[in-house]
Amino acid sequence: MKLASIRHNDRDRVATLKDSDTLVLLDGFESMRDLIRSGEDPERFESRTSIAVDEVQWLPPVRHPGKICGVAMNNSASNARKISAPDHPAFFLKPSTCLVAHREPVRVRPYYGSVHPEPELAIVIGSMAKDVDAVDALEHVFGYTIFNDITGNGMRAEDLFHYWALYSGSDGELEKREQHLSYAARYKGTDTFGCVGPYITTADEISNPDDLDVECSVGGEGIAEDSTRYYNYKVAEVLSFISQFLTLEPGDIISCGTAFKPSPGRKSIHQANFQAVEGPVEVSISGLGTLENPVILEDKAIGNWRLPADE
Amino acid sequence: MKLASIRHNDRDRVATLKDSDTLVLLDGFESMRDLIRSGEDPERFESRTSIAVDEVQWLPPVRHPGKICGVAMNNSASNARKISAPDHPAFFLKPSTCLVAHREPVRVRPYYGSVHPEPELAIVIGSMAKDVDAVDALEHVFGYTIFNDITGNGMRAEDLFHYWALYSGSDGELEKREQHLSYAARYKGTDTFGCVGPYITTADEISNPDDLDVECSVGGEGIAEDSTRYYNYKVAEVLSFISQFLTLEPGDIISCGTAFKPSPGRKSIHQANFQAVEGPVEVSISGLGTLENPVILEDKAIGNWRLPADE
Repeated sequence: MKLASIRHNDRDRVATLKDSDTLVLLDGFESMRDLIRSGEDPERFESRTSIAVDEVQWLPPVRHPGKICGVAMNNSASNARKISAPDHPAFFLKPSTCLVAHREPVRVRPYYGSVHPEPELAIVIGSMAKDVDAVDALEHVFGYTIFNDITGNGMRAEDLFHYWALYSGSDGELEKREQHLSYAARYKGTDTFGCVGPYITTADEISNPDDLDVECSVGGEGIAEDSTRYYNYKVAEVLSFISQFLTLEPGDIISCGTAFKPSPGRKSIHQANFQAVEGPVEVSISGLGTLENPVILEDKAIGNWRLPADE
Repeated sequence: MKLASIRHNDRDRVATLKDSDTLVLLDGFESMRDLIRSGEDPERFESRTSIAVDEVQWLPPVRHPGKICGVAMNNSASNARKISAPDHPAFFLKPSTCLVAHREPVRVRPYYGSVHPEPELAIVIGSMAKDVDAVDALEHVFGYTIFNDITGNGMRAEDLFHYWALYSGSDGELEKREQHLSYAARYKGTDTFGCVGPYITTADEISNPDDLDVECSVGGEGIAEDSTRYYNYKVAEVLSFISQFLTLEPGDIISCGTAFKPSPGRKSIHQANFQAVEGPVEVSISGLGTLENPVILEDKAIGNWRLPADE
């Protein structure tokens, strides 16, 4: 089943995609998270109201997920570029305020610097997951959707610290260690940096999430042709690993890592800088549809975030 | 006014602190976020039910904030250890699932490695803030609370990448640049790594958030005596800067950075490793009360997050 959140008659509603042209409203659920938590069969709640797909106003399938985790450098194509790296999934968080739905614009300002798309498979959590073994992890998946993890690599290069970190040495004395840290909230979490949708495909329709084709284009030009089978860590391993540390809740989203292998003879995602390349940006994943977002350049300078010196 | 979220008769309630011994339940609000959004004067909603502070079950003042931002290395005492650093606030996100209330335990497992406290002043956002100038920023503050930004510096040292990043060069060709990145979701976002409370002190009671004393102790031993006046970026500047990128919503929390100057002759926060040092951990900030949390060592090994090789 394919489930969408949409805006209809000034209300947020949940709907099923009956065929490629038609959505049917569901009665009895306040939100997708409400539907997921209920554990009910959505088809029992179908109303008589159908809406043409062309006319619908899409919303992010989960409007306010409790958290959005993104896995860093999970594509095996990036392994050759690693000088040193963890031997487990590393992940960052994106805020729900960065989400935009299918056909909503990504808004880019001059002061963001370079911004590029990252096409990814995302999990939507169905039931609370804490300390879950990998062999049991997929039981906690409600469904899958497409995530375009928009990344400000210009800001990424700015939010780096090279410093002497303080650690407790083996003798209990304070010890300085040279360390590099970076912080992702700005380059991953800026408004409109999380395209998601168009809808959720329930887990029963995806027999193997670790073998899905992923394509990405910008302005009609293919920039990535890849597959989730090249992820270093399988979907189940990612979910299981995160659950050893963070409790996952119904409606939480995990974006599993970038599928970025360039289309033959084309530019790569890293060259698809929205400051210079026109949208729309499209991501397609087998079985999950196509997520399309226009890109708008906003002529807005950064505000006065420093206080006057005399204050 | 001081406002708390508490559990009373199996329901989540909002209450005012009438004096140091007594809380009074408020009627008419589902949650603190509901109260903040309403813009109403809470005193008009006081019920006749009062509860002794000693008997109350505290909840995080905002139970499910839309986001929690933490500012990295904002204490001027860390500046001498910086080899290179951004010239603006850098920040990370913590998930709402990491929050624990006053008197709830911080739970530490052996596989987390070293874990230490970070005493911080936190803002609670009162009204939507986007592109706000620093001179107007404090208008968007509902109140202040104490945040103990528990940090797994053992995990921090594991989630580092040293690699060749791909950027679009000036000629449009793909260019490799040596880069260090790190990811904070695990070392900042693990369950129980966000102690917050006990309550919110409304903004009208804090004449200058940039001059508040901060103290921290572990197991009764003072480990930090500091002040928010040593933050590199003032509260208003932090809020304003973040709002140039991320929309801040009512109930969002910004923890403004660690006040970590060691108590004279004592160990520093970096030596207060919860794997070795017994709790409770206490943080006091002038006007905001004292946040106390026991520390529990859980004898739990990491689960089997790898799939069997034949799968």
